[in-house]
Amino acid sequence: MALDTGEGSTHARSGPSLTGVAALLSPRSVAVVGASPDLNSAGGRPVRYLKQYGFAGEIFPVNPKYREVAGLPCYPSVGDIPGEVDLAVISVAAGRCRDVVRDCVAKGVKAALMFAAGFAETGEEGRRREAELVALAREGGLRICGPNSIGVTNLAARMAATFSPALDEECYLRLGSAALISQSGALGYGFYTMCQDAGLGFRYVVSTGNEADLSCLDFMDYVLDDPEVRVVLAYLETIRDPARFEDVAAKARSRGKPIVALKVGRSEVGGRAALSHTAALAGSDEAYGAAFRREGVIRASDLDHLLDLGVAFDCLLRGRSGLPRGRRVVVVATSGGAGILMADKCQEWGLELASLDADVRDRLAQVVPTYGSTVNPVDVTGQVVNEPELARQCLEVVAGAAGVDVVVFMLGTLSRDLAVRVVQGVAGAAASVGRPLIVVWSGGRELSREGRALLLQEGVPCFNVPGRAARALADLAWYTGARDATREPRRRTLPAPREGAAGLLAGQVDGTLTWAAGERLLSVYDIPLAPGALVGSPEEAAAAWRGLGCKVAVKLCSPDIRHRTEVGAVRLGLSSEDEVRAACRAVTDSALGSCPGARVEGVLVQTMVDGVQELLIGARRDPQFGPLVTAALGGVWVEVFRDISMRLAPLDLEEALAMLSELKASALLRGARGRKPADLEAVARILVNLGRMMVELPDLM
Amino acid sequence: MALDTGEGSTHARSGPSLTGVAALLSPRSVAVVGASPDLNSAGGRPVRYLKQYGFAGEIFPVNPKYREVAGLPCYPSVGDIPGEVDLAVISVAAGRCRDVVRDCVAKGVKAALMFAAGFAETGEEGRRREAELVALAREGGLRICGPNSIGVTNLAARMAATFSPALDEECYLRLGSAALISQSGALGYGFYTMCQDAGLGFRYVVSTGNEADLSCLDFMDYVLDDPEVRVVLAYLETIRDPARFEDVAAKARSRGKPIVALKVGRSEVGGRAALSHTAALAGSDEAYGAAFRREGVIRASDLDHLLDLGVAFDCLLRGRSGLPRGRRVVVVATSGGAGILMADKCQEWGLELASLDADVRDRLAQVVPTYGSTVNPVDVTGQVVNEPELARQCLEVVAGAAGVDVVVFMLGTLSRDLAVRVVQGVAGAAASVGRPLIVVWSGGRELSREGRALLLQEGVPCFNVPGRAARALADLAWYTGARDATREPRRRTLPAPREGAAGLLAGQVDGTLTWAAGERLLSVYDIPLAPGALVGSPEEAAAAWRGLGCKVAVKLCSPDIRHRTEVGAVRLGLSSEDEVRAACRAVTDSALGSCPGARVEGVLVQTMVDGVQELLIGARRDPQFGPLVTAALGGVWVEVFRDISMRLAPLDLEEALAMLSELKASALLRGARGRKPADLEAVARILVNLGRMMVELPDLM
Repeated sequence: MALDTGEGSTHARSGPSLTGVAALLSPRSVAVVGASPDLNSAGGRPVRYLKQYGFAGEIFPVNPKYREVAGLPCYPSVGDIPGEVDLAVISVAAGRCRDVVRDCVAKGVKAALMFAAGFAETGEEGRRREAELVALAREGGLRICGPNSIGVTNLAARMAATFSPALDEECYLRLGSAALISQSGALGYGFYTMCQDAGLGFRYVVSTGNEADLSCLDFMDYVLDDPEVRVVLAYLETIRDPARFEDVAAKARSRGKPIVALKVGRSEVGGRAALSHTAALAGSDEAYGAAFRREGVIRASDLDHLLDLGVAFDCLLRGRSGLPRGRRVVVVATSGGAGILMADKCQEWGLELASLDADVRDRLAQVVPTYGSTVNPVDVTGQVVNEPELARQCLEVVAGAAGVDVVVFMLGTLSRDLAVRVVQGVAGAAASVGRPLIVVWSGGRELSREGRALLLQEGVPCFNVPGRAARALADLAWYTGARDATREPRRRTLPAPREGAAGLLAGQVDGTLTWAAGERLLSVYDIPLAPGALVGSPEEAAAAWRGLGCKVAVKLCSPDIRHRTEVGAVRLGLSSEDEVRAACRAVTDSALGSCPGARVEGVLVQTMVDGVQELLIGARRDPQFGPLVTAALGGVWVEVFRDISMRLAPLDLEEALAMLSELKASALLRGARGRKPADLEAVARILVNLGRMMVELPDLM
Repeated sequence: MALDTGEGSTHARSGPSLTGVAALLSPRSVAVVGASPDLNSAGGRPVRYLKQYGFAGEIFPVNPKYREVAGLPCYPSVGDIPGEVDLAVISVAAGRCRDVVRDCVAKGVKAALMFAAGFAETGEEGRRREAELVALAREGGLRICGPNSIGVTNLAARMAATFSPALDEECYLRLGSAALISQSGALGYGFYTMCQDAGLGFRYVVSTGNEADLSCLDFMDYVLDDPEVRVVLAYLETIRDPARFEDVAAKARSRGKPIVALKVGRSEVGGRAALSHTAALAGSDEAYGAAFRREGVIRASDLDHLLDLGVAFDCLLRGRSGLPRGRRVVVVATSGGAGILMADKCQEWGLELASLDADVRDRLAQVVPTYGSTVNPVDVTGQVVNEPELARQCLEVVAGAAGVDVVVFMLGTLSRDLAVRVVQGVAGAAASVGRPLIVVWSGGRELSREGRALLLQEGVPCFNVPGRAARALADLAWYTGARDATREPRRRTLPAPREGAAGLLAGQVDGTLTWAAGERLLSVYDIPLAPGALVGSPEEAAAAWRGLGCKVAVKLCSPDIRHRTEVGAVRLGLSSEDEVRAACRAVTDSALGSCPGARVEGVLVQTMVDGVQELLIGARRDPQFGPLVTAALGGVWVEVFRDISMRLAPLDLEEALAMLSELKASALLRGARGRKPADLEAVARILVNLGRMMVELPDLM
């Protein structure tokens, strides 16, 4: 039996056997185990949706209690189904899942979608039961989505295998080019309907649940292969396989399909941020940030942000002019106020208002009324009400100008008919000019419905809040840069540690390296350190000072004391034997007074270094993403201003320089305000070497 | 003839004569001058709207070209109108306005609304013509709204005197408790329709245009007197009368009616564009920020922010529990993901997740399924689908708990019927518990329309983006504090300068005080300065050093040099005669090398002061708001991190301390990280004295 759905990615029965994600998202036949004649229940909804929306494959309700569900024959068990089953939707309680999975394996079902909650998310016992299920399934060649999923939808195949009430309304089956992969089912499907309201069409919606077997990455990987998918939106709480994430992200970049992710759980990090040790400065949320940045995955801050980028990418990737390649914006407004507001927002989001040269302004002056403005933001005035063609003329002039990456047209309230006429002009301009164009239309739905629909259809993204449009433009510009940047796949382990490095790790006390071992290790990795000596007495300290022959600092070294200044374990700017001797005693007394019983490795007498600016350079090992290198403004400032930049290790010199230029303090480092410029390349080399050390020495920290 | 509109603020003809804003917003009769039978034109729309929506007063179309417009008799001129006219809507070209105004004055019309553009916003000539019109009108007792206004609407009176197409749809006449006063007509009416889509009802919408006569403040003042108005939203480009603004804001506070303002022109380009848009004098954006903060006016960042606060205030001020009085939030979610996202957003906006004590958690445990969570954010799980009453039970438990200011309920996608049942429970909980409750419902319109409408009706604000809800809650908490704080009206001039102060101002060179005069002036105002001496030669410098007897700094003083470090005009840490002598020469050579011809007042030899932290204390005179006092982190950091706090002068000690606590660096100033705490009260006294000096000496700077 060959199916022809006319469109999309369902497969002919005669084709090769489906596996894994394909069986889940593009099945030829679906069994619903636990099917119910209550078509609003978790066992009834999938049957109803599959039937009602015209899924072209076979639908097999399974439930020993019923002979028929929704007019379809209902089978007592999976084994009783007469045909082959690609996907079993398992809508039974947690306790019965095991038996059903066994049945599915026996039947040769390819994939199972499990709705039941009550597994790994409830604790140890649930985790164990979940692992058993997966083992059973793997053995039998069955792949699982869930448990605790609320279902998957393939819109092209009209296959809604879900119990989410989001699908109750057929208007929420608008087909398009987006895919949504969500680790929260309820939030994911809720967000999906918000996108549909905004006119964004989808091909796939996946709730991945507990990801006992198939993960969000499996689904991303699959949907990226669908030629009709142009943008992937994701709601994430965790990424279980960072290496795989990098592969999937690389595939997305190479195909020019952006991934936009809303990753939650930031605030946990905020709580931990109080722990201000160098290594602990970065919570794992920052590791996600660094990983996303490295891989060209755009991080959305909230649902509206995710939605806006879905719309923007969907439209512009369909349009002829593609994505903006930079941040130079021309704003054309029909209301002075709207232009001013957009100019504010462009600055807020780091966009640049392109300056229009005299020639362009002369040509604008032929179009713009005298009480308008030919300076960017251009004000073509409400005169478009009387002459709708002004909009198109004005947009064509500015979109053709040199030094412009994107044109923003600000539309006010127009009557319905007029709106459509103006919008036709805008869409015409978008089609005729090779520059991306977006519209900000701050007005109600009733008056703009037809116009907005037309814009979306023509590939012109339409926003209604200026700041949201500016934020999206900033992200688009970032994305094109990140997509096109060349990058090596990240190597997680390098061939071998440098000579002599591994042996030094024995010098760790409770996970902290002694000063002496640390000093040698840094030297092995060409990370310079101010000269100094570790001493055991005031007399040795005095001798060390004589050897160094300059102004010194004296610090107590103890594996039990991290914040030395807080316990008085540091004295600075000492320039005589007596001072050094006294300081040696003072730091010991003060620190041990504050931390009785702290183990003392010695007192460090170290050259005071003058320089342009104190920086903090650090590294930590993220439990998921591995080594992470940090650069920050040093001293007490790091915690006040959080002026921090991070990268996953290993990193190259270019990445390290980019890190430094991301710091807010970077202008100062480059010599602003009459300061001496810092040797940024030397700092960048330290970052590279530190990253290398972390990668090569997996046992360090 | 007595009118009975049944509702709202139209007045009976037999009542006292209307004046000014009342005649504009609540007229008993309206003439439309330039009326047109093209009912979609600027002269036709007002006639159509007034008639179509049932304005109960008289409508008099005026146009010599027609005998009838929209079925109403049309008069050749204003003088020909048989009855009295409260409001003349003048829809004629700029060049004809003068004649029409003359006619209106002759007729005894009370107020005129002028649509024409082409006045002050076009330059000098337009400004002159505008001033003439106003003079003419004032003489005749006629008040003007505009020119360049697109009209005013009084929804209770069904009086839409506007040519904005926003009113084409009757759905955009939803009556409610908000008033919108906008200095941009097109953006204002567009925004208004967005609010109406979101379910926010209005009483007034005013486009103030060029504000040749009546300003946004006149309209705010008027609408605050309407007992049905609960919240005032404003789009502002300028405030022409800061003293009046303070009076209006004080009135709003005393009546518990929040003003939320979107003030544009923050960016340089936006500010310039605002200047040319409505011909307004731009005060500095920071001064607006300081004025708004002082007066308890909430500053919205964008249209969505303005809208959200309109909805939140409208709902909560109608509800029984009023506004939240603090930042302690309990989140109750039906989806784990939504709860996490909201927790992130609460932290981002400075809200606190209240911790629930054991007793409360025990009671929650009787309601929440075992796979949910009784810790804040509480996860009541998707089980509400099967037991809708769980929502209400759960909300009542947490809303009754101690230490909670507001409860946020996160709702997912539900079928329409179920949604209504859950929402009824939520509304019931809101009504039965004395704590404010808001809902975040991240789902599409189709499924939630009835539920959302019910929530709004019951006074429960409903958002769909978590971050927007958190932002609104943070603003609500700030507002209740600002509303209830006692504050003196700001005095713009104090009785007299301190003894000896005024004479010192003679020492200004091109608006810059000499060092010598400045030093004395600070002393008069009890603002301490590091001891030093101004000298004229290296020898005098050496002598000064001997007199001070400590480490000194040497600085060149010139009215032509502001950033001394950039031209090498500063030497620090000098501790010998020779060093001081050499430094005196060096700063002179270096500075004059960089700035040839700079006038030199002398070289300052000044004691080096050690301290906890360098701060910047400054003041300037804003062209609109007057003296503004600044505290910031000092040195090069101020420009990098913009850690700046500002207040209008005069200010009291409490305000000055609040300024310092707003700095990001404030924890450090209070002694974090083992640092010595700064004497913040001493700094605050300097701020107070500086403010006093600025107010008492209006000729300074």
